[in-house]
Amino acid sequence: MIRTILPLAALALFANPALAAEPVLAPGEIAAAAPKADWVAIASSDLLVMDLTPDAKGKARRVVIQLMPPPFSQGWIDNIRKLAAAQWWDGLSINRVQDNYVVQWGDAEGEDKTKAKALPVGLATVLEADYVTVVTKANADLLNKVTVSAIEGELPERAELQRRGGLHDPYSGLAGFVGGWPVGSDTSSFWPVHCYGMVGVGRDMPPNTGSGAELYTVIGHAPRHLDRNIALVGRVIEGIEHLSSLPRGTGALGFYETPEERTGIVSVRLGGEVAGLPAYEYLSTESTPFARYADARANRRDAFFIRPAGGADICNIPVPVRRVK
Amino acid sequence: MIRTILPLAALALFANPALAAEPVLAPGEIAAAAPKADWVAIASSDLLVMDLTPDAKGKARRVVIQLMPPPFSQGWIDNIRKLAAAQWWDGLSINRVQDNYVVQWGDAEGEDKTKAKALPVGLATVLEADYVTVVTKANADLLNKVTVSAIEGELPERAELQRRGGLHDPYSGLAGFVGGWPVGSDTSSFWPVHCYGMVGVGRDMPPNTGSGAELYTVIGHAPRHLDRNIALVGRVIEGIEHLSSLPRGTGALGFYETPEERTGIVSVRLGGEVAGLPAYEYLSTESTPFARYADARANRRDAFFIRPAGGADICNIPVPVRRVK
Repeated sequence: MIRTILPLAALALFANPALAAEPVLAPGEIAAAAPKADWVAIASSDLLVMDLTPDAKGKARRVVIQLMPPPFSQGWIDNIRKLAAAQWWDGLSINRVQDNYVVQWGDAEGEDKTKAKALPVGLATVLEADYVTVVTKANADLLNKVTVSAIEGELPERAELQRRGGLHDPYSGLAGFVGGWPVGSDTSSFWPVHCYGMVGVGRDMPPNTGSGAELYTVIGHAPRHLDRNIALVGRVIEGIEHLSSLPRGTGALGFYETPEERTGIVSVRLGGEVAGLPAYEYLSTESTPFARYADARANRRDAFFIRPAGGADICNIPVPVRRVK
Repeated sequence: MIRTILPLAALALFANPALAAEPVLAPGEIAAAAPKADWVAIASSDLLVMDLTPDAKGKARRVVIQLMPPPFSQGWIDNIRKLAAAQWWDGLSINRVQDNYVVQWGDAEGEDKTKAKALPVGLATVLEADYVTVVTKANADLLNKVTVSAIEGELPERAELQRRGGLHDPYSGLAGFVGGWPVGSDTSSFWPVHCYGMVGVGRDMPPNTGSGAELYTVIGHAPRHLDRNIALVGRVIEGIEHLSSLPRGTGALGFYETPEERTGIVSVRLGGEVAGLPAYEYLSTESTPFARYADARANRRDAFFIRPAGGADICNIPVPVRRVK
């Protein structure tokens, strides 16, 4: 950090002796050097593209969200696809910006049933049970070997966990990556977790689970206490700065107090409907370069660092995503 | 969350049966209800007050930082007191805003020795050893009972840790609170940790440790890999939104590419020099209400939640700080 750009090939003080003759790469450099075969294409049909009104200088503001694959949250995601197809969010706004927590968008008048914008017909009501995925024979293959270690039986010791490459997690016992997504797991189920940039479904008091019309993204320290209490449906893969740098709301929970403070939504579309959208890909979380990247996030050996941490929490290992070159 | 303000006296679904007849409070409500005797005054001499140029609407922007007490980072903090007394930061600027990472301020021309602003005489060069505090008989009383559990011997099992109220930490084995501050600890030393809002000292490549002239604050998920690698000197206790909502820099590491993008610093003063400054206090981390607050952060039982997490990471338990009424 602070002033110096990390050199591309610096020898670190605490490098693994076995690698001492090789250059020590920073995590981002490890990801960038991964072969093309280890990057997984993201289908444009799994993207949600939100265009905001231009900023004060007239600059365009586009936020690109990747929706989760099965088995996660598909009831809400089906609703979101319907809402986007109906162009439901067009003309609505960003209504809440709470520092170190979330940015939320949708219908600012939704609380008042006499003023609320009508939802498209056919949205499903999803059950709380769908906040988690129960481990079955049919889906166990979705768990990579890191996460599988949690379902073999009792929670392993810290040393054993580290040997296996798993992450000891204060919220769930074990955390790992499944098909490109960060998940928590216990002995019987797994679920996506609230890291920076993850997108979730606003809801009222339980047993309400939200329809998907009211969405938020995390713009602060991971609020992991929300895991298994709210549906997560995706993550921002580009343009989060257009949300995280918005003025904070001064009302309760960071809601804006006047309509003038809100940022307008021009349109929200599925990626397949957006002309000229770049293609994106993520680094396979089952790949060897990802394992090396995660290890380097937990044990910084590049030249700026004097003492590798020896561990990391799951939200400090963001899955690399990039535009396809 | 999302739409509904949490009710003051709602019975949660998963409340501790022993408490079923009592109202279940949210963590913030537990802190707010703590008796005055459990709040600790922050001396104005331990505050650093940074006034930025007004925002686009002419509104004042003040950031209030609490400096750490001994035994943490006092070499750098002494330098910071001298820099503030010399009014060294006046007229300098915010130069870097990296999304989900840090905001940094100081001398934008500091890299170029022919243009750098001269530092006051008498600043100390602090050693890397001071990134941590070695546990001795003389300072062991500073560790509260949570953290003491880490220095009794081997790392306890997860269940034993939870029984004691400690936090299992992927970065250090154990984390807890010492005199109002979040710390990591191993069997021989302890150190402050990089949570949201913590303020640290920018530096060049090791063994450089920075003087304190170049400062940053965390505006994203806790970058705990920086612990023990950079000095932490305090935390923002008011006005962080004036930093976290700044436009992100588009240069490498989030540095602004043109001088026009920078936000000007009008002045930085120690609290004792600022007329009309409010008094602040924090909730004692050795108090019973703090223990209840931390437990509630890890086990949300208030009405919005259907499933308490059963744990939390140290940076998801921010120490409550407030203006004195």
